Amino acid sequence: MARTAVFYHAGCPVCVDAEQQLATSLDPARFELEIVHLGESKDRIAEAERAGVVSVPAIVLEGRPYHINFGASLADVKG
Amino acid sequence: MARTAVFYHAGCPVCVDAEQQLATSLDPARFELEIVHLGESKDRIAEAERAGVVSVPAIVLEGRPYHINFGASLADVKG
Repeated sequence: MARTAVFYHAGCPVCVDAEQQLATSLDPARFELEIVHLGESKDRIAEAERAGVVSVPAIVLEGRPYHINFGASLADVKG
Repeated sequence: MARTAVFYHAGCPVCVDAEQQLATSLDPARFELEIVHLGESKDRIAEAERAGVVSVPAIVLEGRPYHINFGASLADVKG
């Protein structure tokens, strides 16, 4: 059964690079990848926060947050 | 042709988790993964620095550094 991977970003250059280089490099046989733009889907911010995301880009693998470099804080994304 | 992925760590709990959850989740069809313990292989620290690594755990994909959460600074690994 595929595991869930949710990549949260906000369209920033660091985010785009992490998405192209890292998020899309996960094994598609093991992960079902969802990409969420928190700037456009602000209703998903609370969900990201509950998973422990404090900045973007971040990827949540089976509920655990992995922050990848630093693009913007979640506070900045909220605006 | 497989692309190169080098995961640098220092044995810290954050490192071990990132290795198990993220580094080993890369698509094995596209990446050849090497795992380097910088605490044990101090001769590899300069190489990590040249790739832009400033903290561990980090993964370098085709020469570009992606820091994953924060375990320890490279300065601390040097001791």
